[in-house]
Amino acid sequence: MNEIRTVGASYENDLCRFVVWAPQRKKVEVVLNEKSYPLQHEQWGYWTTSVPGVKPGAAYKYKLDEEKSLPDPASRAQQGSVHGASLVVDTSFGWTDTAWKGLPLGDMIMYELHVGTFTEQATFEGVISKLPYLKDLGVNTIELMPLAQFPGSRNWGYDGVYPFAVQESYGGVEGLKKLVNEAHQHGIAVILDVVYNHQGPEGNYLSEFGPYFTDKYKTNWGKALNYDDAWCDGVRNFYWQNALMWLDEFHIDGLRLDAVHSIWDFSAHHFIDELRIKVRKLEEQTGRKKVLVAEFDLNNPRYINPPEHGGYGLDGQWIDEFHHSLHALITDEVDGYYEDFGKASHLAKAFKDSYVYTGEYSIHRKKLFGSYPQHNSFDQFVVFSQNHDQVGNRMLGDRLSTQVSLEGLKLAAATVLLSPEVPMLFMGEEYGETNPFQYFISHTDEQLVELVRKGRKEEFSYFKWEGEVPDPQSEKTFKQCTLSWNTDQKAQTLLAFYKHLINFRKTRAAMLDKTRASLNIISVDDELKVIVLEKKSENDNLVMVFNFNKEKQTVSLPVKLKLNKIFDSSAQQWNGPGEINKGIISKVIEVNPVSAVILEHQS
Amino acid sequence: MNEIRTVGASYENDLCRFVVWAPQRKKVEVVLNEKSYPLQHEQWGYWTTSVPGVKPGAAYKYKLDEEKSLPDPASRAQQGSVHGASLVVDTSFGWTDTAWKGLPLGDMIMYELHVGTFTEQATFEGVISKLPYLKDLGVNTIELMPLAQFPGSRNWGYDGVYPFAVQESYGGVEGLKKLVNEAHQHGIAVILDVVYNHQGPEGNYLSEFGPYFTDKYKTNWGKALNYDDAWCDGVRNFYWQNALMWLDEFHIDGLRLDAVHSIWDFSAHHFIDELRIKVRKLEEQTGRKKVLVAEFDLNNPRYINPPEHGGYGLDGQWIDEFHHSLHALITDEVDGYYEDFGKASHLAKAFKDSYVYTGEYSIHRKKLFGSYPQHNSFDQFVVFSQNHDQVGNRMLGDRLSTQVSLEGLKLAAATVLLSPEVPMLFMGEEYGETNPFQYFISHTDEQLVELVRKGRKEEFSYFKWEGEVPDPQSEKTFKQCTLSWNTDQKAQTLLAFYKHLINFRKTRAAMLDKTRASLNIISVDDELKVIVLEKKSENDNLVMVFNFNKEKQTVSLPVKLKLNKIFDSSAQQWNGPGEINKGIISKVIEVNPVSAVILEHQS
Repeated sequence: MNEIRTVGASYENDLCRFVVWAPQRKKVEVVLNEKSYPLQHEQWGYWTTSVPGVKPGAAYKYKLDEEKSLPDPASRAQQGSVHGASLVVDTSFGWTDTAWKGLPLGDMIMYELHVGTFTEQATFEGVISKLPYLKDLGVNTIELMPLAQFPGSRNWGYDGVYPFAVQESYGGVEGLKKLVNEAHQHGIAVILDVVYNHQGPEGNYLSEFGPYFTDKYKTNWGKALNYDDAWCDGVRNFYWQNALMWLDEFHIDGLRLDAVHSIWDFSAHHFIDELRIKVRKLEEQTGRKKVLVAEFDLNNPRYINPPEHGGYGLDGQWIDEFHHSLHALITDEVDGYYEDFGKASHLAKAFKDSYVYTGEYSIHRKKLFGSYPQHNSFDQFVVFSQNHDQVGNRMLGDRLSTQVSLEGLKLAAATVLLSPEVPMLFMGEEYGETNPFQYFISHTDEQLVELVRKGRKEEFSYFKWEGEVPDPQSEKTFKQCTLSWNTDQKAQTLLAFYKHLINFRKTRAAMLDKTRASLNIISVDDELKVIVLEKKSENDNLVMVFNFNKEKQTVSLPVKLKLNKIFDSSAQQWNGPGEINKGIISKVIEVNPVSAVILEHQS
Repeated sequence: MNEIRTVGASYENDLCRFVVWAPQRKKVEVVLNEKSYPLQHEQWGYWTTSVPGVKPGAAYKYKLDEEKSLPDPASRAQQGSVHGASLVVDTSFGWTDTAWKGLPLGDMIMYELHVGTFTEQATFEGVISKLPYLKDLGVNTIELMPLAQFPGSRNWGYDGVYPFAVQESYGGVEGLKKLVNEAHQHGIAVILDVVYNHQGPEGNYLSEFGPYFTDKYKTNWGKALNYDDAWCDGVRNFYWQNALMWLDEFHIDGLRLDAVHSIWDFSAHHFIDELRIKVRKLEEQTGRKKVLVAEFDLNNPRYINPPEHGGYGLDGQWIDEFHHSLHALITDEVDGYYEDFGKASHLAKAFKDSYVYTGEYSIHRKKLFGSYPQHNSFDQFVVFSQNHDQVGNRMLGDRLSTQVSLEGLKLAAATVLLSPEVPMLFMGEEYGETNPFQYFISHTDEQLVELVRKGRKEEFSYFKWEGEVPDPQSEKTFKQCTLSWNTDQKAQTLLAFYKHLINFRKTRAAMLDKTRASLNIISVDDELKVIVLEKKSENDNLVMVFNFNKEKQTVSLPVKLKLNKIFDSSAQQWNGPGEINKGIISKVIEVNPVSAVILEHQS
């Protein structure tokens, strides 16, 4: 029972095999082409049958205890909507990426995108059309927001209810495979955001099939999935199979595990720990690196620690605290969780220790928070100045580009791209997209829509924002989030700036050392908002100055070093006010307001 | 803030210092001798003041926001009842146990007792009067059921609501110190059962003071204590201080942590992990071993693993599965959780791996359960054939002595005392006490009493027991649980049998080796209900045969060994039917029904 039990409809030679988990049901039938086929009850609550002559595209439902007929929890495609019949899918595909080996997390330069708003097409084909652009930008990994079939055609993806189905409006199973295959041809890895902590509210029939949920714990999105209560093995198996399906059948290079702090599991083998074991086995079998990254809000290194230290062995995790430190510092915002941040020393801590809170008191959380990640190198942490949540969970979904100047955008980009951690961009930030990324849905259940509207308004009641909360259900809200692909001069300059720094971090020896000893904070001044740090490898030594002050600053440099300035975000080349100084600099340097500077050690 | 913040009323020179945690209150006063003294609000939600001229025994309450006056959550003694005023206590005591160094868990032979029913006196003095008897029996550790002040005078102790107060009817603070001091004179360590997973329902005013509870999780006994939600640090501190109070001020030698699986803590530093760090520091300071043992239902070695393997580093845990294996095998009971046990191979697994379920499917739990304790030696596991729960949570609280014959009692005792794990007796089992140990309470809240009565009935509805559930509130129920201290001939024989085996395990080299390699299962026969095992040290080699069959059995022995029989539970010496064979035995041995035999290797 420790092995994965495959659920869903799949072909075995000429037969279509149906497997569904329904441990407390007395009778299960598959209704197909207006005929009913009984399933046999097997061990552990699984029901199976094999049916001949089933064509790809055939519609089916499961009839439970002679009552209602429902779509398959492991549906690979849905007819019409999340409420419709499930469809049998031919999963064969003409892969041409045989040479592809994947990428380790530490080598990744990520680009998060939402398929529905990335291009006007709102499809995988749209993404494919941008692959040459992304390759030219220098990113080598795209991270796709969740693709599991959701209600309607507009959704961030976290309301998905068929984890095994690819959103039909994006291009379905075939479309995604084509995108992954093409991405690999461009040397671009694909990470998929998967949601294993809850299921969306509309079209969620899981409880009819079995005890997928438990009352033991709560999540922000309703009932917690059952990972450790009675019958949990069927649920655990369901999501493990799902993870392996993306990584194996779809050639996906890694998973971004949504909100793993809401995957409640107190059993002796944590779901995440066993997932890692299964994925590492798949790596061996396929010879391809598969990356597991957690979105994780607990500053608890257990999830990313190696197994020999009792860890769950994930490759890495997102670090929202890096974002919060940077955002609060550059915007002076103090609402909500930003109250825990805002000082240059917070950002310096994020540079140095990855976690900002490693046991200190958090005013926002009202408790001591976090632990020091002593076993973890920089390449286990994903950092960003923007992402779907940090933009989209603002009331107006406004991007940094509408909050700070071009100098601020460049400083934010430099902070991320020169950080020792793994950088991630949010689609469009590289050219200063100004269209918002707002919260949008397209539910068909009117009551639910009202609940979401109400919840959205309440969420922002404690923020001091002006204006109306955009209607999440409105198509207009969705449409105005589609990228503009603006190419005006400012956009082109910013894009060139990103390319320059991406290339710099990919090629410069000092940037490639991911050990914690490779970075030293030389000085932090909370009052002046200046950070000076040293990033080095065995034969390369850089000094970086980040000035978040709106005034010009004079900054002390390490006295013993002879330094040559090689980069200045305020240079005219980047549409800035122009460099104050150039070339060899010693002891002190004057830096422009809101700018970042790199100096190299002259031996 | 990582250091313990002392709460409660305590003397500092001539002043009485009052400290209480009430982070969301606007005003706190201490009402004392009909006067009100305001407390000052300090950091982290603590309020303090110092009052001169306060005599020991002075009664006080805290007045919150000029509303109600309530007893101190950290009360050291209560006036009259759990609803009365708190009393200032003089904690000085004339300790005479300076030579005492404590005991490591692996050396312990434990004896669990309930102060209220151990003797007619129902006091610590009663326990003191039995210390010579316990020493003579050979146990070196008494484990006291919880002592925190509870409502009325009859309670197991798990309804305690003042964790810092010692039940007044037992003898209070002074009485307990006298018991510990006397125990140490007798070479007996004292372990205290402490309840950090819930608080009793009556007299529980904690929520008036602060967010002691959270809605994030549930426990079997109501709201979960807040170990990881906002404001949790005050709660964590409260219980850490409590643990250290027992171990330091009371010279208690160890804590038995009740139901740690219901201490919900998902933070980066688990409450239990930090407790261990603080207790280890106290060990260094005092030069005395302090043992931490968990009651724990998850078969998850993380709690007892060493910190270098990511563990929380507890000394050990109780193993209910050993009990269940033994009980089901010897009684043929199959109800409730016994459905997961009943085979000789279950008990053999408990002998060999300590956990019976190390990843197998549990029918009762309806899931795969447990993990193999690879980093843990035998001396981290406490085993027993009876304890307060396993007796008292039976509908009639009937002991094993009323369920099986004398031969069965001796076999059960031999199974526990010859096991490689740490043995624990339940008061009275050593002489075959037949008085029950039933569930009893003495709440004053009638509604609550009805709820408990109802709950008790529901709890047993799925068991196939006949008769009425005893009324937990009735004094008669309590009275009939007091030990009889029967000394008839059968009782004396059983007592001698216990003494013999306790002495054997304390002195025999093969019994002192606690490494997992020191035990081999030679054979297990589920059909015949026979286990043969080998227990050895470098220079000593024992073979033990346990026959749970009601028929005589002929059992194969390791062919290469020349064995000398040194013990037979069926011998006439122990009031048995008489040994079938004596002296040197080779290849096969005939063993009496329901008996245990020890053979030693003749080199």
